[in-house]
Order: sequence, then C-alpha cells, then structure tokens
Amino acid sequence: MDDRTHLWNEFAAQLAVDSIRCTTAAGSGHPTSSMSAAHLTAVLYAEHLRTQVSDPDDPANDRFVLSKGHAAPVLYAALKAIGAISDEELLTLRKFGSPIQGHPAPVPELPWVDVATGSLGQGLPIGVGMAFAMRLNGSPGHVWVMVGDSEMAEGSVWESMETASFHGLAGLTAILDLNRLGQRGPTMHGGNASVFRDRAVAFGWHAIEIDGHDVVEIDAAYAEARHADRPTLIVARTEKGHGVSFLANAEGWHGKALSEEQAATAIQELGGERHLTITPPKPESFIPIEVSSPSVGEPPVYDGPAATREAFGDALAWLASQRPEIVVLDGEVGNSTYTDEVLGVAPERFFEVYIAEQTMVGAQVGLQALGKVAFSATFGAFFTRALDFVRMGAIGRADLRLCGSHAGVSIGEDGPSQMALEDLATMRAVNGATVLYPADGNATVKLVTAMCDLPGISYIRTTREATSSLYGPDEAFPVGGSKTLASSPDDRVTLVGAGITLHECVRAADALSGDGIVARVIDCYSVKPIDAPTLRRALDETGLIVVVEDHRIEGGIGDAVLEALAATGPLSGRLIKLAVTQMPGSGSPEELRAWAGIDRASIAERVRAAIA
Amino acid sequence: MDDRTHLWNEFAAQLAVDSIRCTTAAGSGHPTSSMSAAHLTAVLYAEHLRTQVSDPDDPANDRFVLSKGHAAPVLYAALKAIGAISDEELLTLRKFGSPIQGHPAPVPELPWVDVATGSLGQGLPIGVGMAFAMRLNGSPGHVWVMVGDSEMAEGSVWESMETASFHGLAGLTAILDLNRLGQRGPTMHGGNASVFRDRAVAFGWHAIEIDGHDVVEIDAAYAEARHADRPTLIVARTEKGHGVSFLANAEGWHGKALSEEQAATAIQELGGERHLTITPPKPESFIPIEVSSPSVGEPPVYDGPAATREAFGDALAWLASQRPEIVVLDGEVGNSTYTDEVLGVAPERFFEVYIAEQTMVGAQVGLQALGKVAFSATFGAFFTRALDFVRMGAIGRADLRLCGSHAGVSIGEDGPSQMALEDLATMRAVNGATVLYPADGNATVKLVTAMCDLPGISYIRTTREATSSLYGPDEAFPVGGSKTLASSPDDRVTLVGAGITLHECVRAADALSGDGIVARVIDCYSVKPIDAPTLRRALDETGLIVVVEDHRIEGGIGDAVLEALAATGPLSGRLIKLAVTQMPGSGSPEELRAWAGIDRASIAERVRAAIA
Repeated sequence: MDDRTHLWNEFAAQLAVDSIRCTTAAGSGHPTSSMSAAHLTAVLYAEHLRTQVSDPDDPANDRFVLSKGHAAPVLYAALKAIGAISDEELLTLRKFGSPIQGHPAPVPELPWVDVATGSLGQGLPIGVGMAFAMRLNGSPGHVWVMVGDSEMAEGSVWESMETASFHGLAGLTAILDLNRLGQRGPTMHGGNASVFRDRAVAFGWHAIEIDGHDVVEIDAAYAEARHADRPTLIVARTEKGHGVSFLANAEGWHGKALSEEQAATAIQELGGERHLTITPPKPESFIPIEVSSPSVGEPPVYDGPAATREAFGDALAWLASQRPEIVVLDGEVGNSTYTDEVLGVAPERFFEVYIAEQTMVGAQVGLQALGKVAFSATFGAFFTRALDFVRMGAIGRADLRLCGSHAGVSIGEDGPSQMALEDLATMRAVNGATVLYPADGNATVKLVTAMCDLPGISYIRTTREATSSLYGPDEAFPVGGSKTLASSPDDRVTLVGAGITLHECVRAADALSGDGIVARVIDCYSVKPIDAPTLRRALDETGLIVVVEDHRIEGGIGDAVLEALAATGPLSGRLIKLAVTQMPGSGSPEELRAWAGIDRASIAERVRAAIA
Repeated sequence: MDDRTHLWNEFAAQLAVDSIRCTTAAGSGHPTSSMSAAHLTAVLYAEHLRTQVSDPDDPANDRFVLSKGHAAPVLYAALKAIGAISDEELLTLRKFGSPIQGHPAPVPELPWVDVATGSLGQGLPIGVGMAFAMRLNGSPGHVWVMVGDSEMAEGSVWESMETASFHGLAGLTAILDLNRLGQRGPTMHGGNASVFRDRAVAFGWHAIEIDGHDVVEIDAAYAEARHADRPTLIVARTEKGHGVSFLANAEGWHGKALSEEQAATAIQELGGERHLTITPPKPESFIPIEVSSPSVGEPPVYDGPAATREAFGDALAWLASQRPEIVVLDGEVGNSTYTDEVLGVAPERFFEVYIAEQTMVGAQVGLQALGKVAFSATFGAFFTRALDFVRMGAIGRADLRLCGSHAGVSIGEDGPSQMALEDLATMRAVNGATVLYPADGNATVKLVTAMCDLPGISYIRTTREATSSLYGPDEAFPVGGSKTLASSPDDRVTLVGAGITLHECVRAADALSGDGIVARVIDCYSVKPIDAPTLRRALDETGLIVVVEDHRIEGGIGDAVLEALAATGPLSGRLIKLAVTQMPGSGSPEELRAWAGIDRASIAERVRAAIA
C-alpha cells in the first residue's frame, strides 16, 4: 500500500469515526448511511474535489452535492477535515441553533454547502443545473453528486439523467453509494449493481462499477469520470455501517445513533479517533466566458390589450438582453409561457429540459447556487409537480424566480387539468416567498423586473387571455404595494381583485355605480407580502370588502386579505370571498367565470345583496 | 387485405375524422395528436380491449387509460363508435356543461372513463394501481395505457415502469404513440424508437417496436403484450396528423383545431365521414378471489400517551382486518408512518412502491378506480412530491385517503427538509378535500375509521412524538366538528389548536388560569370542513381567538378559522395567529416550538399582552 492509499483509508476511517461521534453526541442521526460513503467521500475530498476551501464561491471550484442528505455526518466530517469547521462545531450536530443540521442546508455559516438536501432524488437535478452554469461560464469545474440506492426509485433521478445526457453534460458525475439497505430493509434491487449500470447506459451515461470501499478503485473511477465524454454514473458497492462488526451490512440500523458504549466499541474497531487535516486539490484557473447580452433597447410598453403571459415573455427577453446573469428554464411549454422569446436574444441561456418540471426547478436551484439569476416557467398547475423542489429551494435559501401561466378557470376550454387553481395557496405557504399577480402588461414588466433582485422564492402568476391596459408604462409597482383604482369618501364597498378578476371588479364597480353604490377598487398585485395598511383602511372606511379571485377559495387572495386584516387590529365589518368552490369543466372563460361566481355580474349581485 | 384489417383501417379513419370534426366544432383542441393514435386506438377497441360497454364497472373488464390526455378526441370518438356516447354528444366537445371535456375526466355521465388525465406522466402510475387491483381480485383483465413521447421525459413514467417490473405486473401494457413532435417542436429523441425500447428493457420490461399505422403489426403487438410474462412497452412509430397531406408529420399544428375549410379538405382526404359501430371483445368470466380479512377483534384503545402516527397504523391494521377492500401503499417509510402494521394482518394488500411518491399516489388512483378503499402514507412533507397527482385525483373524483406523518417543527432534530409545514395549506386548497388533524390516539382511530367512507380526497396529519390521552374511546369525532375542552361564561379568550398544539393550548390555559384569565380551548381536529358555528360563537362570546398551529402561518388552521368567521357574518373582535413564520433548523421539539412561538409559554404570553 502506498502512502496515498494509506492516507485515504485513514481519512475514511476518520470520517466513519466522526460520523459516529457526532451522531452519538446528538442522540440521533444516520451513522451507518454515512459509513457506507466514507471511502467514497475520503478519496473525493483528498484527491478529486478541486476546491478552494478559503473561497467556496470561486467559479473554478468543483461542486459536491450530497443528494442522500441523511448522510450529512460524513459531509460535516469531511468539512472538518478540510478545516472548514472545527471538531467542536461538528459535535453540535442537530443541536438547536447549530448550522450543523440533521440534513445539509446552506446556512450563512456553511458556505461550503451549496444547496439543501434531505428530500431524496433532488441532488442530480441540482447537479444538472450546476453543470449548465459551469458550461455557460467556461469553468473547468466538475459536479459530483452522491446518491443513495433508495433514492434511485425517485423518478426525478431518471428525469435528470435523461436531461444530463441529452445536453451532453460530461462535467457531471453521480456516485451511487449502493449500500443495499433502505429505511425498512433491502432496497428494490438489493446489492445488484448491474441494474443501475445498465439503466444508466440506456439513459446515455457512461457507467463504472467498483468496490466502494477500495480506495484504489475509487480513485481510478473518479479520474475516469472526470475525463469521460458524457456524464458518468459510478456504481459503488458498499456496506451500510462498513468497518464495524455489529453494524456492517446489518438490518435494523437505519437512522439510529449508537449509544455511548456502542460508539466506543465501534470507534475502537475503526482504529480510534484521528484528526487528519486534508487539503483538497486546487481548481484550475480559467478565463470566464463573457456572456453576450445584446441590448435590445427599451423595455416593452403596452397601451392596448395584452396577455400578461406574453408580457412576461417580452419582459424576460428584454431583461435577458440587459443582464447576462439571467438564465431561463423551460418545461417544453415555452411557446405558451412565452419564455421562448429569450431564444431570440440569448439562446445559450435558454435551457429546454422538456416536460420534466422536477428537473426544471432542481436545475434552477443548481444554476442559482452558482450565481445565475434563474427563471423557470410552466403552467401554474404544473408547478404542483415540482413543489417539493420549491420547498427544498426555500430551505436552501435559493433565489428562484417562477412564473406560472394559465391561471384559473379563465383558461377556458382545456378544462381543469390545465387550470392553476391552487398555486397561490401553495406558493404563499412557502417560507419567505413573494407572490405576484399582475393585471396588465405594464404591471407585468415592472414586477418581472423586480423579481430579478428579489431574494428567496418569487412567483408570478400570469393570465392566458389578453386583458385591457390599466396602467401607463411609468407606473411603479413596489413589492408589497397595491393600486387603488377608484376611491372616494362615498365608497360603500371595496372590491379587491388581482390579475383577471381586477378587470371584473372594475366592470362590477361600473355596474354598481348605476345603482348608486360607489365601490372602491383595489389591485392586489402583491399577494405576498400584501398591502395590509391599504386593506385595513378600506375595511375601516367602507365596512365591506369583497375579494374576488380566479383560484380556489382556500389559501389565496381572500385568505391573504383576512390575514392582513387580522394582523392589523381588531376585526370589524364584513369580508366576502368570491372564488372557485367547485370542480370546473370546459367552457369559455366568460362562461366559467360566471359559473364560478367571479365575473362582474356575480360581483355586483353579491354586493347588492350584502348592502341591501 | 382481409375483412378485419379493412375494418380496422376504416375505424381508424373514422377516429381521425371524428377527432377533426369535434375539435373544429369546438374551435380548439388537439386533432393531430389524436390522429397519430387513431390506428392504435382502433385496433385496441375493435379487437383487444375486452370490455362490457353496458357494464363499465365489471371487474373482468380490461382498462384503458389515455395518459396523453390532450388526445381526448380520439378517446371520445372511440366511445362514440362503441355506442357509449352519441355523435351529438361528441360534438359538444369542450362546451360549457358538457361531460366531453378538453381532457378526459370521469364525470358521472362518462363511466367509461376511469380517471382524469391531462397532466402528463400520470397514466402509467395509475395503470400500475389498476394492475395491482386486478391481481388482487384475480381478474383476467389487462391494463392498456397510451402514453405520448413528450411525456416520457416525466420521471413519474420511469418510476412506475420500475414499480411495474419489480412487482411483475405482466397485465400492464404501455402503448407509446411515438409521433416525434411535442408542443414546441421535435421531442428530445425525435422519432428514435430504439431509445425507448432499450430503456424499457433496462427497466425490466418486454419491448416491441412497430409501425403505429400498420394495423396488422399493431394487432400482433397487442396479442404479444397480453401474453407476455412481464409488462410490455409497445413503441409505435406514428405521425402527428397522419393521413392528411398538410398535417402529417408537420410542425406548427400542436393543439390547433382546423378551420371549417381545412377540416373539409382533411376529412375528404381521409375518405369522408363514417359511422361504424364497433363491439369490443367480451371479457372472460372469472371467479373473484376472496380476500381474507382475519378479524383481530376490537379497535385499538389508548388510555396513556401515544403518537398519533402509531395510532394511525394501529387503526389502519384493525380496519384492514375488518374490511377486505382496504389496500395500503407505502413509499418506503412504513416503519415511520406505521402503515407496516398492515403487513401483520393483510400482507397481500400492502403495496411497497419504495421512495416514489408520485407512483404511490398514482397507483392509489388506479386502485380506487377499481373499487379499492386505498390509503397511502408518507411524511407530510413528501406529499409535496405527489401534489399534482392529488390535484388530478380530485379532478378525477378519486377517493384518496392520505396520511402525512411528521407534522411541523415538532419532529425536531431531523430539520426542515423532513418537516411538514405547508401540508395543511396545500391539502385545504384541493377541491372537495377533507383535512383532519387528531390530537390523541382515540381521536385518530375514529378519524381514520371515518376516512374509509369519505368521498374525495381526505388527508390526516399525524404527529411524530407521543402525546397524552385527551379523549375516551367512546368519544365521537364527526367530520366538520370540533371539541371544546374547556368553556365557561367567564372565558376571555379562545385558544384554538389541533394535533400537537392542542396540548400546548391546554397547558397555556392552565398557566393563564393562574393569572385569573379564563380561556376556552377548542380542538379543531377537522380543519376542513371546519366547525364554523362553534368558532363564531367563541369569537362572539370571548372576543379574542388565538389560533396555534405547527405549520406555516399561511393557509393553515388560522386561515381556515378566519374563513369560517368571515363566512358566518360580520367580523368583530380579534384573531391572533401563532404559527411558523421563519425557517427552522434542527433542535428538540420543545426548543423548536418555543422558537416558533407556538409553545405554552408563548401562547400565554401573547394572550396576556393582548388582554392587558
């Protein structure tokens, strides 16, 4: 055994020992799932992960994503060995207030962790996005994603494998820690490595099978993967709990910390504590590719009817022409969401991932982790497909700009499968999210522009059909604001709408004025944060608020308004929510809005009944 | 050409013509995506789909799922040909009030449609569930799922292919209508059939490649698929718009109806209108397998601390022992959700789909479509992975019983990736859903029992840690009800909790009573529908409601309470929502509840401040 292999084995033993130490200190966690990955992690950090520990944001760095996030201890143990965190910090695993959480999260104290993992099957989609970013930058970096065998059952893994090979992402390697055992017992395929190898090859990948505890085989596989002409899957046969007699390849140990006594025995079997310091290889220097951004002049302006989905595409293309860091992901509906307008100004920054919404948002997480301002768009209904990725994005402090088109029953004839009716509820519930819903073209341009600089998850909802112009091109639309379209001391009711229903509210106000009922009209274009002071004043001054939305009655604008009112003082007056409460079918937009009771006539009727 | 092939070709031409006729009458829709599937559909209905048109619920029937739901016209045209609907009904496609919607949905008027499709990649997971049901019943039926090539990019397709081969579902055939063109242009693999064939084989399927417009090849492939020893993928090379010179294999026609003039020309090229009547082959008769249900006696009862997740498993096992139609699906966390208790009483009705939540819920849709009372369970956080399947399930009038465990920050050390914090918001927003959240073991048993007979989507949220017993075993928990744990004329505040926070509310009330503040305490175990009259009375009588929930502040119990109050009359008094408003990390349950401000001390403090 030469010096290097000796070092790698010692390092692996240290990783296993430290995984046991910190989980036993925590009283919970996943030591055995960390131990199966110890040799794979050791050789990666010692020899192949080219990274500046002192500059984790260096665009030349390789990236490592621990998709099997429950093996967080082995990652933290590696971060200790490279000097990123101290041994004391390692032992705060899972403690309240510690950045060393049960699953990896890129909290500010841990800049060496790029993304949150812990919901399985998300690492490879993220890795696809990182590889996109590196290629765009001309970076020599390589993306290493460690996946577990249980998570290979997640469809998102195969989605992203397809995307990676289709886009020729040779800079991406997946390391499969095939430890045979899942949470309940053996995985679907047990220790059968050839299943994964064959599938990877069928999906256009290079595949290598190795003994995942043989550092020489690991080293060779990593070298081969870095230089392969396509993405590579390394199928590494491992043992859960490797190296300890009573843990190795044994069932019943998933997610269990060892007692102090068990830990002492195990650490002894592994040769005791070590405190090796490892210096990963340095990245190659490179000259970043200058991304072209041919300015196309002024922002789009609308003075007549426009569909906000089209204004979104217009705005995005204009912004992409101004800001080279903008990238756009499409789930093969770019001609419906109008993201494909970006192809006209920046085709190299438009990523077509086909109908694979999980990979779309996962790759977006990877792109933003490497500094891109990433937008993705699909029908609002289909973001439900990727909601777990949005949720995990929020946990990972990701800046994700999402556009959901085809809002509500107003899409008409296509029917309910294509209607976004729960999107406001789901996106409002995401931590720190911003939820926007413009009613005309000029508002859309302003809000899309604002999204470029918003932290966290931001979601803009767009409408399929053209709507009339309400605002001039110089109107400002601050996030958290609203627009009062009509207001007077005689107002007896406030109509609150957004997007398509704002137009219905305006028309209902016209109809009501014929009956002598003066209505205030508020455009609630910022659903979260919402303009609570304006809504509170409206309730106090008019005594009746009617919120109208093309969305399910639960969790949308009506609930957001109620929350704003409850949060700003005692309740008084009445609030009526008009929204979708039954299952729609096909029909024209007008028919369906009337059916749902959210059209001008229904609004006016409800107001008359309430005021009578 | 013999008589049969002539008939099949004529039938295919009729399907193409009728697809054009109804979409042109509608002014929208997908004629060309229907035409590529015309021959495949014709031979299926004429020769291979064994079904009783007069008895669509016959358990001996084959089942057909049109996963590429936008090709609905070809399905409706086939239903016309078999006499299920009339030509007049066909021509109501996409009209308001018509059951002939833009995408297939199993409305009461269309019992020949089992499930809703239109969100791509869902048909095969559903087919897996149907094949499970048939095998359980001993039915000779076969499941035919038609998929499009665009949707092969969805990970859910590969998830379910893996599940199908792992479980040996030879009774499942996928017909891939490889028409080369997606919405924006060519699909990822264009007309490359071998890619799909190779991948299917790597995933353990039998695969056949055919010309999808050659009825003889189609017939032979269907016969081969029915008798294969494993699930079969038929890769059928087709043309979008086949049979019409200006449509065939042409880009730019996705989702576009023909004008009257174009339609006349196209129909002429296809040989004109036909009104053939087709009688599908009859199903074989069979003797259903008697499902054993060894009664294990009395329902579980708790008189001490219990985790509601464990009570859920206890109740489910007991119910499965009583009711042979109950089936259970697990996403490889059955030892955390406690569904694995069902293995002890009915192992053949426990379906392990491993970590593949989309397939779990999709298969559940298929099982319930064939009459099973289907439960699925995973961590509540991971139902976000399957939300589009739940949404489509609601559109398809599916009865889905879902259990989300590990609610809120109260899971503790594992950290935010494993915490269900948005589940109430997302499930509340689902059309017609019931959302339940028990606080102790006996309540859990009653609510799980009620779920067996609830229509639509029902969701029960369970808690990881043990909570004390609040109710006796004879207490009733009607859906839509609540429990008032403490009430007096002196109440100055109402504390509303559910699940874990109800216990915090009870303790806060104890603490407040020491300060002379009498608090009413309400258990809001039925979040949707919610007990509006009780909450309204509480607001009127106490003037202050404090809602406490281990969930994000948006869209959960607080919003549900506000909605109930707004819906029952003028607002008055104050409502305070205590919920999670920041991103949690790891910690103990107690630390995290204190951090979120939802523990007893925080509640008492907020009440004192509000009343002072």
